[in-house]
Amino acid sequence: MSTPVTDQGWITKAIVAARDGWYTTTPNPRVGCVIVKDGQQVGIGAHLKAGQPHAEVHALADAGERAKGATVYVTLEPCCHTGRTGPCAQALIDAGVAKVIIGMRDPNPKVSGRGIAMLEAAGIEVIADVASAECESLNLGFIKRMTAGTPRITIKMAASLDGRTALANGQSQWITSEQARADVHRFRAESCAVLSSAESVIADCAQMTVRPEQFDMSADDFGGLANGGELRQPDRVILDGRCRLTGDEPVFNDPASLVLVLPPGKQAPVDGVRTLHLDYEVTGFDLPALLAALAACEYNDVWVEAGAALAGAFVAEGLVDRLVVYVAPKLMGHHSRGMLGLPLISDMGNVIQMKWQSIDTIGPDLRLIARFSD
Amino acid sequence: MSTPVTDQGWITKAIVAARDGWYTTTPNPRVGCVIVKDGQQVGIGAHLKAGQPHAEVHALADAGERAKGATVYVTLEPCCHTGRTGPCAQALIDAGVAKVIIGMRDPNPKVSGRGIAMLEAAGIEVIADVASAECESLNLGFIKRMTAGTPRITIKMAASLDGRTALANGQSQWITSEQARADVHRFRAESCAVLSSAESVIADCAQMTVRPEQFDMSADDFGGLANGGELRQPDRVILDGRCRLTGDEPVFNDPASLVLVLPPGKQAPVDGVRTLHLDYEVTGFDLPALLAALAACEYNDVWVEAGAALAGAFVAEGLVDRLVVYVAPKLMGHHSRGMLGLPLISDMGNVIQMKWQSIDTIGPDLRLIARFSD
Repeated sequence: MSTPVTDQGWITKAIVAARDGWYTTTPNPRVGCVIVKDGQQVGIGAHLKAGQPHAEVHALADAGERAKGATVYVTLEPCCHTGRTGPCAQALIDAGVAKVIIGMRDPNPKVSGRGIAMLEAAGIEVIADVASAECESLNLGFIKRMTAGTPRITIKMAASLDGRTALANGQSQWITSEQARADVHRFRAESCAVLSSAESVIADCAQMTVRPEQFDMSADDFGGLANGGELRQPDRVILDGRCRLTGDEPVFNDPASLVLVLPPGKQAPVDGVRTLHLDYEVTGFDLPALLAALAACEYNDVWVEAGAALAGAFVAEGLVDRLVVYVAPKLMGHHSRGMLGLPLISDMGNVIQMKWQSIDTIGPDLRLIARFSD
Repeated sequence: MSTPVTDQGWITKAIVAARDGWYTTTPNPRVGCVIVKDGQQVGIGAHLKAGQPHAEVHALADAGERAKGATVYVTLEPCCHTGRTGPCAQALIDAGVAKVIIGMRDPNPKVSGRGIAMLEAAGIEVIADVASAECESLNLGFIKRMTAGTPRITIKMAASLDGRTALANGQSQWITSEQARADVHRFRAESCAVLSSAESVIADCAQMTVRPEQFDMSADDFGGLANGGELRQPDRVILDGRCRLTGDEPVFNDPASLVLVLPPGKQAPVDGVRTLHLDYEVTGFDLPALLAALAACEYNDVWVEAGAALAGAFVAEGLVDRLVVYVAPKLMGHHSRGMLGLPLISDMGNVIQMKWQSIDTIGPDLRLIARFSD
């Protein structure tokens, strides 16, 4: 990348730096920071992992004495509170920087603007919101959790061109290609949690883990593993309203990252597994309560791989942000199983509307991403 | 277009000329011809309509005396037989051209190579098959009819992202957008016949005609109407095995372009309508016999707009060349009607395989074209 000459160019460089933490920062946001003096970069940093230094601290360490009088470009408003690390706004003040240019304000309404106020009170010039849309795209799940109190929900499906996800006898391995299935691992890896049902993981003997051997991060333009970060396994959240899991399923191979959602009073079949207890009716768990519980687990992005009934319940209750549908150029016919269980619709005006977000080919298949809101 | 300097450049110019007949030449093939002398174009022509002069005759008329000693670029082997017009190979000989460069040979095995032989016998240098793939793409339906004895069959569908074509109560207007429906008219216009079932045209009050007001040919890079050709209505072929049509349906508004397919001995409900009589069982008409009858009508391309049962029967019998599926970013749920009725499949190895031919957005919808053979 050539040396930028505009604020927009430098903030873009900070956005690219933020991507180094793409797969690893959660539950924290992805943040990048570049420090510039006399038109030259003197420091750069990204937040890589919760509990480790924030982007500004890495960039200040990189810049050293050159930070004095410099301009700081940071994708997210510097924090003003002491969490696992000290407040970044104070670190910038202590380093004597002259100016801070901020991509977007903190989305948490409880603290938004406070970092800016702290910097300004110390006499530092601040320009905020110079690249809101681009910086938001780094942290859609984090922003959803901070503003709506629920994780961003993505439902994944794999279907034939005629919209079928399994044969009538349940066979579904494999509708989509090896490449499409590897692409799923990338989405799992960037999520905080993978959510499924006991029925699905039993039927598919699924582990729901990220398998690095299926996941070529060196081909990824985002950082993470390619930049030396270690693989963070997302939690696997399994809804087991009917207590069907015995503890012998492959999903129990790594109990540390397993969370079972159970009706009140029910126990996990093995020790050492986290549990969430939620009201359970014949129609299933209370999904809004589930999302609140998932947000309380600090999950920013939840990736749902489930059958037509659970996926349809999420959609029907308006709880889904986007669908990621892998479509194979195959036909399976009307006897095969459908994609989505929804209540009966008797008027075309009540059909559920979405918008395409992206359309790509993945090996021999298509990957269609549709979002529900604008 | 700048003046070509290579044979490939000149044949490409002839291919572009051939497109002027895109919507009008059937049942004849689309053919373009360019005549070149001393590196300059001296004549150009395209076949526009059956019964009117072939491309070579138009180009020779354009060139006049300058054709003598010239090089002729023509997308398809010149004909050697006297049909509604005289043989083009003889016309080229009579004009005294020196060299003929041919995009592809005549696909009709009965006459392929004869035009070339006639030219060579007259001492004209001939180079054949210089752009076979590109020239084949002008006439896929014609080639299919000449080589396989059946029309090229395209099935059109409009579905939601979850593969549904109508609500449980039959409502389907409109799943896809106005832009997608206009795109359908372009495909109808380039087809020789639009095929549907009595059930479908009754349910949708459909005319199955090309409505020019929905069809912006000026935006088309192919010629036809844009080049002054008149609109040719494709025939509408309606399967009415149970004799449900009464003659009052909108499809009878233009009886001249209507063809009813009826069981043996059954009459059309109104006079002046062509009929085809074919064996009819409870499972429907004998589809291979139907395709042979459609080929006998000289249909190169047949565009099928039908329900899940008829479309599925075509697919299950392996009679389809491609699917054109308009996918709206909508969800309709498992109660809604499926895309394709197929026999029960009990092994993933028996799922029907296709390949994507093209993936495009049409307004807010997708248009996915998948082909069955390589």
